[in-house]
Amino acid sequence: MADIPAKTEIGVTTGPIRGSRKVHIGPLNVAMRAIDLDPSCGEPPLNVYDTSGPYTDPNARIDIMAGLPQLRRDWIMSRGDVESYDARELRPEDNGQLGPDRSGGVQPFPNVVKRPLRAKAGANVSQMHYARRGIITPEMEYVATRENLGREMLRDYVRDGESFGAAIPDYVTPEFVRDEVARGRAIIPNNINHPETEPMAIGRNFLVKINANIGNSAVASNVAAEVDKLVWSIRWGADTVMDLSTGRNIHDTREWILRNSPVPIGTVPIYQALEKVGGIAEELTWDIFRDTLIEQAEQGVDYFTIHAGVRLPYIPMTAKRVTGIVSRGGSIMAKWCLAHHRESFLYEHFDEITEIMKAYDIAYSLGDGLRPGSIADANDEAQFSELFTLGELTHRAWAQDVQVMIEGPGHVPMHKIKENMEKQLQVCGEAPFYTLGPLTTDIAPGYDHITSGIGAAMIGWYGTAMLCYVTPKEHLGLPDRDDVKVGVVTYKLAAHAADLAKGHPAAQMRDDALSRARFDFRWRDQFNLSLDPDTAESYHDQTLPAEGAKTAHFCSMCGPKFCSMKITAEVREFAAKQNAPADTFLAADHADADRARFANGTGSVAAAEAGMAEMSEKFREKGSEVYLPAE
Amino acid sequence: MADIPAKTEIGVTTGPIRGSRKVHIGPLNVAMRAIDLDPSCGEPPLNVYDTSGPYTDPNARIDIMAGLPQLRRDWIMSRGDVESYDARELRPEDNGQLGPDRSGGVQPFPNVVKRPLRAKAGANVSQMHYARRGIITPEMEYVATRENLGREMLRDYVRDGESFGAAIPDYVTPEFVRDEVARGRAIIPNNINHPETEPMAIGRNFLVKINANIGNSAVASNVAAEVDKLVWSIRWGADTVMDLSTGRNIHDTREWILRNSPVPIGTVPIYQALEKVGGIAEELTWDIFRDTLIEQAEQGVDYFTIHAGVRLPYIPMTAKRVTGIVSRGGSIMAKWCLAHHRESFLYEHFDEITEIMKAYDIAYSLGDGLRPGSIADANDEAQFSELFTLGELTHRAWAQDVQVMIEGPGHVPMHKIKENMEKQLQVCGEAPFYTLGPLTTDIAPGYDHITSGIGAAMIGWYGTAMLCYVTPKEHLGLPDRDDVKVGVVTYKLAAHAADLAKGHPAAQMRDDALSRARFDFRWRDQFNLSLDPDTAESYHDQTLPAEGAKTAHFCSMCGPKFCSMKITAEVREFAAKQNAPADTFLAADHADADRARFANGTGSVAAAEAGMAEMSEKFREKGSEVYLPAE
Repeated sequence: MADIPAKTEIGVTTGPIRGSRKVHIGPLNVAMRAIDLDPSCGEPPLNVYDTSGPYTDPNARIDIMAGLPQLRRDWIMSRGDVESYDARELRPEDNGQLGPDRSGGVQPFPNVVKRPLRAKAGANVSQMHYARRGIITPEMEYVATRENLGREMLRDYVRDGESFGAAIPDYVTPEFVRDEVARGRAIIPNNINHPETEPMAIGRNFLVKINANIGNSAVASNVAAEVDKLVWSIRWGADTVMDLSTGRNIHDTREWILRNSPVPIGTVPIYQALEKVGGIAEELTWDIFRDTLIEQAEQGVDYFTIHAGVRLPYIPMTAKRVTGIVSRGGSIMAKWCLAHHRESFLYEHFDEITEIMKAYDIAYSLGDGLRPGSIADANDEAQFSELFTLGELTHRAWAQDVQVMIEGPGHVPMHKIKENMEKQLQVCGEAPFYTLGPLTTDIAPGYDHITSGIGAAMIGWYGTAMLCYVTPKEHLGLPDRDDVKVGVVTYKLAAHAADLAKGHPAAQMRDDALSRARFDFRWRDQFNLSLDPDTAESYHDQTLPAEGAKTAHFCSMCGPKFCSMKITAEVREFAAKQNAPADTFLAADHADADRARFANGTGSVAAAEAGMAEMSEKFREKGSEVYLPAE
Repeated sequence: MADIPAKTEIGVTTGPIRGSRKVHIGPLNVAMRAIDLDPSCGEPPLNVYDTSGPYTDPNARIDIMAGLPQLRRDWIMSRGDVESYDARELRPEDNGQLGPDRSGGVQPFPNVVKRPLRAKAGANVSQMHYARRGIITPEMEYVATRENLGREMLRDYVRDGESFGAAIPDYVTPEFVRDEVARGRAIIPNNINHPETEPMAIGRNFLVKINANIGNSAVASNVAAEVDKLVWSIRWGADTVMDLSTGRNIHDTREWILRNSPVPIGTVPIYQALEKVGGIAEELTWDIFRDTLIEQAEQGVDYFTIHAGVRLPYIPMTAKRVTGIVSRGGSIMAKWCLAHHRESFLYEHFDEITEIMKAYDIAYSLGDGLRPGSIADANDEAQFSELFTLGELTHRAWAQDVQVMIEGPGHVPMHKIKENMEKQLQVCGEAPFYTLGPLTTDIAPGYDHITSGIGAAMIGWYGTAMLCYVTPKEHLGLPDRDDVKVGVVTYKLAAHAADLAKGHPAAQMRDDALSRARFDFRWRDQFNLSLDPDTAESYHDQTLPAEGAKTAHFCSMCGPKFCSMKITAEVREFAAKQNAPADTFLAADHADADRARFANGTGSVAAAEAGMAEMSEKFREKGSEVYLPAE
């Protein structure tokens, strides 16, 4: 895909996900995706969480040049606590056009807002501020409806899971959302200048979320490809997207992304600030950084990664590491601190940053600039020292009612993952944890979506609220479209595995629906219920391409002659007959006895043999007929 | 690839793995793979475990038509307890040629052994039998050398991990191997009629192993492709391979595989027995099954999956499941039991089967025919009832000194995985556990190597000795070559993540070597140290294809201008200067204080601030110069 051609629409993927249709639930029209099942099964459509925005709605008119409809505009205005004002002037350095090699630009977004919103003097427009004053916002109501999918159907469901002290409700009420936001256990990242968002929550008592990173770099990528990656990543399930662009055109790229994003967008403002000083970290100043925050706040960035925990005394702790400092933001700040021999300006001006955050409702994502970059460096003093400071900063942000989440590692072997979660919960007052992986081994570049998917599923189970995806290209290159999809789907399945293990009340509905479809050989339903119907169907077709195979009651593993699932159906029929009152040879009461026995973990061979003897007795009583008359 | 053309060699992949060379260690010439590193780093070559056999040795002559050299032949003969005898006659039904549609066959292997070996009357040739009599076999010595890689170098390494009660030694001696085999905690699966194997151990106190499944089915695949898949899967790290062929040509396919396999081969004999009765489970008899065992024993199969735990009273327990019985072997036996209204012939003749096993040294892989096929069915009474019976059978096999491992699930959500391991250890007397995944969610067909890789890493950490791979095609179709590789590499990384978390003394060497290479921008070393050098390099080249980029001190993520690793190197230099005695501004003693503080988990902002104040004081004492003279 070439860069944006003037006056021409950027191509992005639209249309429904295979086998799904868009539905809108409740008075706020919360978007979900309904998967209709084959009439033969008699099951209702399954609604699933939908991050894809209007792009998968055939009734929506998509115009990338115009941007998305402003879903939240009226909600924001009706609160009466914002004002519009003349935006900061765009400067050449905002797009990194400092030198002669940086002249080429991309087309600016056509309809840039010239008068953005901010809180009126003395006001605080953060969702946390409303929550703490007892106000339930439409954003909170939207979240409640969105998170509830399936729970109404499952009111009688027996919950099963280990949530490690989380407080996941059977049913999410708007009041529950408000309370979680008020106490800082969840955030709803929605800048008032990004009214295009469909509100979502990040918190341990909600569904586990995932983030996808996009962004051009100094070496590769272009803005058209980035907008396409945004749309592509939310199509497959990214709950938020971070624009990690560096290099030139950084401002314009972000504008295109924000105006076309129905999910919250995060950035790392220090990246752009660094571009403004020609890439020389020691020339960064608080004024340049502050100006960058305003620039991005006006555009509508929903959360900022701020590496304010990289404090001067922690930096030498990294010197003995195998991989030192691997966070880009962390190393920028480390270099600045060392060059100036002074404390980080992010740390020193933290409360001023918070003032900006609350004027636009931007959430903090407190960056882990000293996260480990290898198994060898996991859980070391540099990492946990910084975490401790992030805890301090969390409470300082909360003092101004500003929303906070905390970024986490990185590279951590399995046995050290839980300690990360426990320390984070303790030190940061249960503020949502947002981790990158962690990667559980360093030896599989090319497969780090998997090495990290393992760690992500585990830390999600332990309580992490959002998982930052890793693509197969991690450590090697920039992800392309296919890599983005593989990364998103991998993290979606990891997040779902975590929801299942936590005992989320509705999580298993989809697993069960898919498993029933599999057992019934409803191939289409199996594909449509999966996270990636296109891949599932294409893999099936590689072995059995004929259309008839989609309805065949066998699969390529065993072939038409013999099939274990077919036999099970026979077993089931047989057992049903045997369970009839007249014939207790293989009766339910025996199964019940075993159930009780094994529920206590006290099974014994003796018991099984006694059961056998009892059955033989019955068999003889009945005249030793092998087949008894049915019913 | 077409089926085997008469008199033509089958093409398989040979040649060294990129960046590696074959080495042979010790008096038994134990094969390993040495990875040479760039001279700039001053590090010795890293030896890694090597399952690939002679195929990656440029000095070996590979002739698929002749088969591999018989490494163990002399060891076996020198024990003086075996005799050769006239093999059972090959019958048409051995290749499934029962009907008119089954006429086409594959070329038989050219040099079939006509006089196989078996134990002399009254003898027992199992490794367990030798071990229990205090005999250290060459097989055990080979295993000890093979497992020790790197440990000699790491005698001073401080071990770190949580092994959940495993007893992993700092150094593996042949006596340790003998003791583990004697007590049943490890097996060395090596049929005396498969002398081509390079001995390996499966047990909780050894490196976690992985198995790859291959095999043609009634629907697809051919023998040439299967031999190629064998060679391909061991190239990437499969420790054992199971031939799960069904349909016709089953005998000949297996012969080709065995004669060309340096790794143990497992089978599920009931699959072939079923073919012999035309696919009609109820027509199976003990005699047909027994004859199939002898047939495969004479060919050299190293372990048999035997579903003897599918007992009659357990079958109705599956009737209420979402996915009933999903094991093919389990459903065959269930159907047989129900049709005949009697206990499984595998269970009833178990001790006779054991007699056969000990005459050839075949290990049991006690099959979990009632494993759960969905999240909904995990850890239910059918599954644990069968496990209980497998424990009983383990002790019955051990009574005849026959080696045993236990197969495990399946589909299990994360919070229920540990219970599987704990129950297995308790009930089966620490016999090695061999699990399929488990898959941690059902909703990602097409990605089940990942849903299961998560469960595999976790259960491997908890104590599972071997992980049966799952490919991306699981539930959808038959894996092709690419799928096999992805499945193997995924399971290799899961097994390694488990070794790391268990605190295996040498596991982290490779992670550290790769991380150092990454930090030093030794791209070639990073590729070569990875599990899949070809993919790592190709991913790198997609963004930065130029040859110069292989030695560039930057990567495509940040570009040449700014790089976090480059900055860290500067931090490190800086800290080194600051740590000089004359300047303690950022001194090691401060870092040590923090280290102690955080080791206790008692860090405090006050302490950090006290440190800062102290440093500011020193800074002022030194005249407030930002840069102090170095050294």
